Amino acid sequence: MTAFDDLMAFQRETEALAQIAGRLAWDQETVMPRGAATQRGEETGALEGVLHARRTDPRIGEWLAAAKAPDAAGQRALDLVGRAYGRNACIPARLAQDIARLTSVAQGIWAQARAAEDVGAFLPTLAEVIARKREAAEALVAGGYGATAYDALLDDYEPGATAAELAAMFDRMRPRLVALREAVLGAEHQPEPLEGIFPKAAQLRLAHDLAVAFGYDFTRGRIDEAVHPFSSGSGNDVRVTTRVSETDPFNCIYSTIHEVGHAAYEQAISPDYLLTPLGAGASMGVHESQSRIYENQLGRSRAFAGWLFDRMARAFDNPGLSDPDALYGAINRVRPGFVRTEADEVHYNLHIMMRFDLERALIAGDLTVNDLEAAWNDRFQSDFGVAVDRPSHGMLQDVHWSVGLFGYFPTYTLGNVYAGCLYQAMQGQVAGLEEGLAAGNAGAATDWLRDRLQQHGGLYRPTEAITRACGFAPHEGPLLDYLETKFRSLYRL
Amino acid sequence: MTAFDDLMAFQRETEALAQIAGRLAWDQETVMPRGAATQRGEETGALEGVLHARRTDPRIGEWLAAAKAPDAAGQRALDLVGRAYGRNACIPARLAQDIARLTSVAQGIWAQARAAEDVGAFLPTLAEVIARKREAAEALVAGGYGATAYDALLDDYEPGATAAELAAMFDRMRPRLVALREAVLGAEHQPEPLEGIFPKAAQLRLAHDLAVAFGYDFTRGRIDEAVHPFSSGSGNDVRVTTRVSETDPFNCIYSTIHEVGHAAYEQAISPDYLLTPLGAGASMGVHESQSRIYENQLGRSRAFAGWLFDRMARAFDNPGLSDPDALYGAINRVRPGFVRTEADEVHYNLHIMMRFDLERALIAGDLTVNDLEAAWNDRFQSDFGVAVDRPSHGMLQDVHWSVGLFGYFPTYTLGNVYAGCLYQAMQGQVAGLEEGLAAGNAGAATDWLRDRLQQHGGLYRPTEAITRACGFAPHEGPLLDYLETKFRSLYRL
Repeated sequence: MTAFDDLMAFQRETEALAQIAGRLAWDQETVMPRGAATQRGEETGALEGVLHARRTDPRIGEWLAAAKAPDAAGQRALDLVGRAYGRNACIPARLAQDIARLTSVAQGIWAQARAAEDVGAFLPTLAEVIARKREAAEALVAGGYGATAYDALLDDYEPGATAAELAAMFDRMRPRLVALREAVLGAEHQPEPLEGIFPKAAQLRLAHDLAVAFGYDFTRGRIDEAVHPFSSGSGNDVRVTTRVSETDPFNCIYSTIHEVGHAAYEQAISPDYLLTPLGAGASMGVHESQSRIYENQLGRSRAFAGWLFDRMARAFDNPGLSDPDALYGAINRVRPGFVRTEADEVHYNLHIMMRFDLERALIAGDLTVNDLEAAWNDRFQSDFGVAVDRPSHGMLQDVHWSVGLFGYFPTYTLGNVYAGCLYQAMQGQVAGLEEGLAAGNAGAATDWLRDRLQQHGGLYRPTEAITRACGFAPHEGPLLDYLETKFRSLYRL
Repeated sequence: MTAFDDLMAFQRETEALAQIAGRLAWDQETVMPRGAATQRGEETGALEGVLHARRTDPRIGEWLAAAKAPDAAGQRALDLVGRAYGRNACIPARLAQDIARLTSVAQGIWAQARAAEDVGAFLPTLAEVIARKREAAEALVAGGYGATAYDALLDDYEPGATAAELAAMFDRMRPRLVALREAVLGAEHQPEPLEGIFPKAAQLRLAHDLAVAFGYDFTRGRIDEAVHPFSSGSGNDVRVTTRVSETDPFNCIYSTIHEVGHAAYEQAISPDYLLTPLGAGASMGVHESQSRIYENQLGRSRAFAGWLFDRMARAFDNPGLSDPDALYGAINRVRPGFVRTEADEVHYNLHIMMRFDLERALIAGDLTVNDLEAAWNDRFQSDFGVAVDRPSHGMLQDVHWSVGLFGYFPTYTLGNVYAGCLYQAMQGQVAGLEEGLAAGNAGAATDWLRDRLQQHGGLYRPTEAITRACGFAPHEGPLLDYLETKFRSLYRL
């Protein structure tokens, strides 16, 4: 056994244990008896302790120093391990423990504060989370991982991205999105909303058919219900969840397609990379690009709406809409709203840009938590033209900050930008794309994504992965062009 | 922190990880996608590696040497940890690994051989399993754990039991069981069997009601389907599984009550013992006593049959039988049969005694695997009066030997004996027992079991636990009296 082999064998066991942690999280959100919650916390804590000890094991440093990669994929695996180990090594064990303990408590405090619409109840905890995350970020900067504290945090989710580049891109996007939003909201033609009652069992059967339409492999996965839909797992056990509202079947339909996008990516990664450092998606942004292109560019297309209308007519006594065009309008209705997770394609990125600016200011110390609510509400009024009516529709709506996920939000818009690029490239290269979607088969599109991007897992750096897939370096142009073309046509502008 | 505290904190984390392993096993048998099997093997292997390293960690020996127990419960916890650690320390790491690898492969070979009715395909592997288990047993004998190799294995499942005592007890039981069997099979009155089709959904609803009737706490558990019913987990996450045959609802009904017996025991253990060495049942035999008394003495009683008849009449269009007496007869029908898991109360222990004698001879080297089939079939002819018609009805029917569970079988009959004792004691002390059962509420019985036995978990040694609960030392008399009274009356002898 060489140092490379030893290191990879060690990593493989660590990854297998990490998969177990993912399975437990799935269990907790889907089937766990509610009385088991406290005991489960102790069980997952024990497993997290094992994982932390392995991820900071000093032998990794020794192996890294001695290891020679046999090929380019091996070198990339070494780079990824070295990067994760190097980042972990920057952060004192005590600080890592403080953050873990603090964020697990903070999530509960945030949830209570949100339920009580009580911003003040969350602020001291949020201030503490920010202080500890800033401390960790500064340690990472000192270790060479990022030029600024925010970049060091961003780098955890989107390696290689910088706040300066993202800010410049967002500044280029904002005016075109705002102009499109204004035009659409002012349009004379407005699509009719969907109305009716759509029984749960029929929605869940439809969710199954949708997953099949998008190439999800049920021999290596399953669909269950959860309060907040997610996908979890890698390789041959990648599960998705969905949720059902009997008055809004689009919730189930599009959360299913979205999570299937994430899951299909994991299922498509080369079996050679299973349980290796290359056996996961390239980054959060690249992962989100897959869920978004499945959900939006493909799942909300006019072609797919034709098939979906037919399926809904069969699944429900009353499909709620008169024809496929009406369905296409309903699934793409643009409406101002407070909540990011319910936003349409035109508004979504405006929600992200606002969070990105606010969290950079929080981490930089230019904004204090005491001024956050006012800053949020002012910015929302200015970007969305509406006054926030309550904290749960404002700064308390997202879980992210309570659990320390600073630097995560921009990867959502990056995913949309990547999805725009991939869709543009795909349209020029994939024969039968629309015909397939119209027949309820996204195979032509998903095959292209699998071959050009998904199979490679973590082999390439994020922008490299997208550039190789598209044939051009990613930029915001294709997404904005797509949105303008689609919504100007749909709203007859 | 004292050495005692350090040891208990370490054990607690190990137990939390062991609970995770149990949750994964549940997942594998109930919800895991079939394509995930190989990957899952690697995941559980990684977790088993972590558990093995913790269970043989030399620090345990150091802590044990230095620890002072604060009280009697603490001393019992130390004894249990010391016993497990001492047993593990006897067995060379290489042999433990060999056995783990061998038995995981052997189970597959056994399953294939059974499907093919091919004894020869299993024998070389079985010989190897026996050789390695004998080697481990001899190492345990050398370390002071058991007077003979078989006792050393038995001690793993039923601490303190010896083959000599069990053999003597079984010798006392056999003639009375054989005489009862002969009388019952020769009786003029024979209960009618159940016939009909019993839809799955209705059976599963009934299973839920049965679990409630026996005090199962659904806020800390759940029921799912599995090929082979089992219960798993401790404390606040104890799940049971059942199986459904649409032509035989008794399969679902009694496997549910049986597993609920195991699960209710785990749920009833004092919360003070959660994730400690005392937080599990006292032994396999004591555990089986709970599943058996729930299933047989309570669940197959005339009183409970009254309520069950009413429930079946409501659950199924055609309950299949004319009245509660007919149901009582049908759930207690005595029929000769090849298969242990399908045996009635009269035959069951005869199956066990035969396996006990054969496996003792295998471990002692008095019987070779080449002579096993003939020995099995001769003994079956002599004990049951029927010739075995195929290996899957004979020596290939049970999984136990393939996975190295030598010394496990006798704990089933020990469980029946303990159940007989507990039932006798309970009848003298529990007011309203029959009335409760007749109303579909086993609470009077299960409360008595919880208070006298279940809540104590592993606090007492197995026979001590039963003796304290019953007020007398366990012996086979009450079981045999119960069986003779019940079946002589039922068969009008």
